[in-house]
Amino acid sequence: MSTDAVGPLLVVSAHAGDFVWRAAGAIALAAERGDPAKVVCLSYGERGESARAWREGKGLDEIKALRRGEAEAAAAELGAEIEFLDAGDYPLRETPELVDRLVRVYREFEPAVVLTHTLADPYNGDHPAAARMAMQARVLAQAIGYDAPGEPLGAPPVFLFEPHQPEQCDFKPDVLLDITPVFERKRKAMECLPAQVHMWDYYTELAKRRGVQLKRNAGPNLGLPHETMAEAYVRVYPQTTGVLA
Amino acid sequence: MSTDAVGPLLVVSAHAGDFVWRAAGAIALAAERGDPAKVVCLSYGERGESARAWREGKGLDEIKALRRGEAEAAAAELGAEIEFLDAGDYPLRETPELVDRLVRVYREFEPAVVLTHTLADPYNGDHPAAARMAMQARVLAQAIGYDAPGEPLGAPPVFLFEPHQPEQCDFKPDVLLDITPVFERKRKAMECLPAQVHMWDYYTELAKRRGVQLKRNAGPNLGLPHETMAEAYVRVYPQTTGVLA
Amino acid sequence: MSTDAVGPLLVVSAHAGDFVWRAAGAIALAAERGDPAKVVCLSYGERGESARAWREGKGLDEIKALRRGEAEAAAAELGAEIEFLDAGDYPLRETPELVDRLVRVYREFEPAVVLTHTLADPYNGDHPAAARMAMQARVLAQAIGYDAPGEPLGAPPVFLFEPHQPEQCDFKPDVLLDITPVFERKRKAMECLPAQVHMWDYYTELAKRRGVQLKRNAGPNLGLPHETMAEAYVRVYPQTTGVLA
Amino acid sequence: MSTDAVGPLLVVSAHAGDFVWRAAGAIALAAERGDPAKVVCLSYGERGESARAWREGKGLDEIKALRRGEAEAAAAELGAEIEFLDAGDYPLRETPELVDRLVRVYREFEPAVVLTHTLADPYNGDHPAAARMAMQARVLAQAIGYDAPGEPLGAPPVFLFEPHQPEQCDFKPDVLLDITPVFERKRKAMECLPAQVHMWDYYTELAKRRGVQLKRNAGPNLGLPHETMAEAYVRVYPQTTGVLA
Amino acid sequence: MSTDAVGPLLVVSAHAGDFVWRAAGAIALAAERGDPAKVVCLSYGERGESARAWREGKGLDEIKALRRGEAEAAAAELGAEIEFLDAGDYPLRETPELVDRLVRVYREFEPAVVLTHTLADPYNGDHPAAARMAMQARVLAQAIGYDAPGEPLGAPPVFLFEPHQPEQCDFKPDVLLDITPVFERKRKAMECLPAQVHMWDYYTELAKRRGVQLKRNAGPNLGLPHETMAEAYVRVYPQTTGVLA
Amino acid sequence: MSTDAVGPLLVVSAHAGDFVWRAAGAIALAAERGDPAKVVCLSYGERGESARAWREGKGLDEIKALRRGEAEAAAAELGAEIEFLDAGDYPLRETPELVDRLVRVYREFEPAVVLTHTLADPYNGDHPAAARMAMQARVLAQAIGYDAPGEPLGAPPVFLFEPHQPEQCDFKPDVLLDITPVFERKRKAMECLPAQVHMWDYYTELAKRRGVQLKRNAGPNLGLPHETMAEAYVRVYPQTTGVLA
Repeated sequence: MSTDAVGPLLVVSAHAGDFVWRAAGAIALAAERGDPAKVVCLSYGERGESARAWREGKGLDEIKALRRGEAEAAAAELGAEIEFLDAGDYPLRETPELVDRLVRVYREFEPAVVLTHTLADPYNGDHPAAARMAMQARVLAQAIGYDAPGEPLGAPPVFLFEPHQPEQCDFKPDVLLDITPVFERKRKAMECLPAQVHMWDYYTELAKRRGVQLKRNAGPNLGLPHETMAEAYVRVYPQTTGVLA
Repeated sequence: MSTDAVGPLLVVSAHAGDFVWRAAGAIALAAERGDPAKVVCLSYGERGESARAWREGKGLDEIKALRRGEAEAAAAELGAEIEFLDAGDYPLRETPELVDRLVRVYREFEPAVVLTHTLADPYNGDHPAAARMAMQARVLAQAIGYDAPGEPLGAPPVFLFEPHQPEQCDFKPDVLLDITPVFERKRKAMECLPAQVHMWDYYTELAKRRGVQLKRNAGPNLGLPHETMAEAYVRVYPQTTGVLA
Repeated sequence: MSTDAVGPLLVVSAHAGDFVWRAAGAIALAAERGDPAKVVCLSYGERGESARAWREGKGLDEIKALRRGEAEAAAAELGAEIEFLDAGDYPLRETPELVDRLVRVYREFEPAVVLTHTLADPYNGDHPAAARMAMQARVLAQAIGYDAPGEPLGAPPVFLFEPHQPEQCDFKPDVLLDITPVFERKRKAMECLPAQVHMWDYYTELAKRRGVQLKRNAGPNLGLPHETMAEAYVRVYPQTTGVLA
Repeated sequence: MSTDAVGPLLVVSAHAGDFVWRAAGAIALAAERGDPAKVVCLSYGERGESARAWREGKGLDEIKALRRGEAEAAAAELGAEIEFLDAGDYPLRETPELVDRLVRVYREFEPAVVLTHTLADPYNGDHPAAARMAMQARVLAQAIGYDAPGEPLGAPPVFLFEPHQPEQCDFKPDVLLDITPVFERKRKAMECLPAQVHMWDYYTELAKRRGVQLKRNAGPNLGLPHETMAEAYVRVYPQTTGVLA
Repeated sequence: MSTDAVGPLLVVSAHAGDFVWRAAGAIALAAERGDPAKVVCLSYGERGESARAWREGKGLDEIKALRRGEAEAAAAELGAEIEFLDAGDYPLRETPELVDRLVRVYREFEPAVVLTHTLADPYNGDHPAAARMAMQARVLAQAIGYDAPGEPLGAPPVFLFEPHQPEQCDFKPDVLLDITPVFERKRKAMECLPAQVHMWDYYTELAKRRGVQLKRNAGPNLGLPHETMAEAYVRVYPQTTGVLA
Repeated sequence: MSTDAVGPLLVVSAHAGDFVWRAAGAIALAAERGDPAKVVCLSYGERGESARAWREGKGLDEIKALRRGEAEAAAAELGAEIEFLDAGDYPLRETPELVDRLVRVYREFEPAVVLTHTLADPYNGDHPAAARMAMQARVLAQAIGYDAPGEPLGAPPVFLFEPHQPEQCDFKPDVLLDITPVFERKRKAMECLPAQVHMWDYYTELAKRRGVQLKRNAGPNLGLPHETMAEAYVRVYPQTTGVLA
């Protein structure tokens, strides 16, 4: 498989931990290729995804600092830059200002590929809210008339990463990404999130499962290792290519 | 864009002309890469797609010979092998024997990529019938226990080419294939079908239209020519890849 | 509303009674306009839709004669011709011969409009089987190369009439047909089917319900009577028109 | 085809040019029938659809004036009234005030038919925003209790016009409108938009393509000219009619 | 059938009358089982669903009082508590404050089952707005970090009740609820809404219709009465159970 | 949870092993409740699902005997009766005779619940073929006029069990069945299929995953064990019930 550079990878994530469970493999692959990778966390997941810390009696600021530290460690493990917009969660509110901040990120970082949440998730309204803002900002950033620094963006492809209950979120994978070469880095990034120990194995098993599916869809798969690890993605826009394969 | 070999390309077509209008670009690209390309025509389209010849009073055998000759010329222009199964059209009947013949084609040709019709087409029942048989045979050919010569097939990806009225056939393109480098060969292949002169321009315009869409979906598309020509495809199985792009 | 002639109306029905409950209004409207109307019953519904007769101990031939007589009376009430193909029900088998008979009906009757069942019905497999054959035969009849008497058919629009459990059959009405002027004839046609007395009121209530919906979708509906009666249909192909309304 | 009056036609458009490319045929047909036609442009498309003017260094007000002038000229060519709400684009914001302004337009203009954008468009968020507001305002205007001048609106049918990449916007045409008699006026209206010369041919070719489809769906189409031009629409609510055709 | 207690039933309704037509049976069944039942009306339906009162010249406050009185009587008939949030209708605005009020209702009432509107309704934007808020608040109430009194909510199942034009709202029933034992109470509750006399029979007929469908889907239905009455619901989340039946 | 009897459980399976991986939990629960459980295997999976045996050079009859023995052992472990129709696989052919045999099974066994495959599976055409026959035969068995011994069947609910690649088969779970109490029996049944050792853990992990989802959808789930095991199902017909829960 190709190891040519693709260009900058941008991940727009509702909460601090999402990018680890769902997209760490894609991020680590980009970093290994030498492509810049950046994670934008719209919130720390301080209210909706920090149940253990609340049960332990921690305060809001303490929880935000905790989640921030974990996410920074995970991003460092993967070789990615990370930025926190601290927009609040549960609910994550869609505002013109937050969309504008994302436009500025697009214009500055000039991603060649964008990852974000699914547009449907009946278990977590913040995820689709993040996805809608990520997609709206991407379109705005393409317009020369939009008033923000930088050049108009190209039209980077967008991939949606896997939610916790994929079928209930209308998540039908279009792409199975082979993350075998970087799975150990993904595992280490997951281990930066100690409050969710049970998730480490859960997402390791998921990677195996998607890996089995990858092998079943991979034509003559002679070169694949016995245990292929994979992440699943949905592609939002048509693939453009010079080769059908 | 890559010009590495992908492997053999198999096109399963209901009638003699389908592969020209809908997939000539993909075929010519394969041939230019040095990949073997083969077209299997299940019928000549003698009853359902030869209106002019019938109106001119030609007989059945004459029409079949005519369609065969045209298709052979078009395939030669594109650099593809062509085989006719002469199973009859309008209706093209799904039979175990015809599926078995396709299994044998798969086992012998060992395609790395398969192209066929859409699974829905309210204007032409032969098209989905061909697609169902192409897909069933592909699965059967993968089973070691299926009694036919050759090795079990891998799991080549399948792409559905564009029908005449795409929206009515639930055709939502997943892939826009840049055929600019080989468009002249596609045009020449179309010109091998003189009974349908009005289609030459019609499908040239369609290629332009899909080309405009390709550019709109192609990120920073600096390298694309002013007039990009494209063909649209639907991908049946998830893409397997080592790179998100 | 227009009372201009539209052209011949063909109804393809799996069983003897279907056309009465589901399309009698459309048939009576055609007859009132002076358009020829013809019902083709693929079977008498002798096995699957004659429970009462079986419980009364009647024999197969007796039941078929009974159903035939009722259907003839209902068709006469509506002003339609009726033909029985006696192909058997439960299951109604899709065969090339039966499709060919339908092609010949199309070529001879030259319908301007076609009505048939929905393509999905998890409660009754005969209904989608009839619809598939009606649609396949319509396409075949359009081909000059198809070997049957008569001229190639035009492309008459196809409407699917309402099944018993519409939502479970993916029946989302595209057309609400005002049958108020002929509802009494529909009622009388229903009363030709005495074995299903409870259905008379059931389908009268349904016509009221669809009538209420018609009024809610009918713009400034000043001219509509207090109790509008309607039938619902799904349109298979795009409407072609010179006026958006 | 009928040339009877239908009633006032209202077009709700996100940007200044949309109504020309997508609905000029329907507008010109209405005007030729003597029906009032009105276009409401929510914005001038000054930021998102004026790339050339921005590249030429023009200022915001200048661009708005330019777009306004072009749109006025095109509307005049088609025989339609035009109103600009100047609500801003990229993004077009959904606000209660803007919806209220649309309610007042409905109450005053009393449309019998409404045209607007599709409800999905992953390439342009302003289009679905305009459609949502157009549809919400239409429902509000029907309520006698809504506090705005005029009588409660009837329930005019709504048609969605064709987006640039129809399949990606889930645009499956329900209606193919024959615009052959007014195509020259559509062409002239397009020529009022000189910044997008390449679009003139693009949308002329699209009209031909939709015209070919119209002929394929138009039953015995003896009366249609060799080159039929058409526009495609999606119907939001069920058609109500006294005649199935 | 079981008469074991299930737990508190919460109904979130856009307007004052919705819960009567659409969910009175479920409410009465809960009350008969001894389960607490509570209806939250986000508005009185004073603008959008009180046409007769407006035509009679009543004022806004008078109409609100009228609707409130009717709804209280109906709730009392059914054995349910009722609360009015008076958030206004046509349009019902989605605001953070209103969602927060619903979170507090969830935290306090601790429902075991939730009923609300469908998420699509092209005839009435208030219905989906209510449903979105009901669903968002339910998710927020589950988060320990959400700042509202009470314990984090469990994950009560959500059922969507039947809209007026079910097919147009993508309402495909997942559950047919047998309300025969309490139908008389539903009828009496409907009769508490004298402004809509025609609806009493309309929804009685609907209950019969859904009852007929219930019998057709109810396996060996020996125990069911001749005239079974039913309400239809869509289930939002997967059913969790220890028994497949 | 209820341990009341439900009635006989019928499982219609394309190949010999399918019922173990996909439905063993439901079968064991039925057996524990004292409900009769019966598995009908349409084929042994001798060609399509016995790759290892073919690679080891075994012959067709030997493989069939092997698969039969394994399936019998697994069924015995679960407490179910098993019958083999030996109709052949890869492809499993849909024939009137095979459907008729299934009708006779329905009439004789009188199931209260039916389990079978999904209706879509692009990886294995035998699965949908089995499902279509299971569903067609169920409908035919309900007709008093169908000529087979026994009484007309009621309308038992049908559940589709989980395919290997659920999202690609449009499998969106409607029901999560708690199989924790019988998971050990499912594990033992899986261990009766020694040729597929890697599947034992694969389906154990899947049961954990579906168990996690069950807990997330199970309201106040206080009573659930730390590690809940579950199977997922799609429900074909609406649930009929006297209690919303």
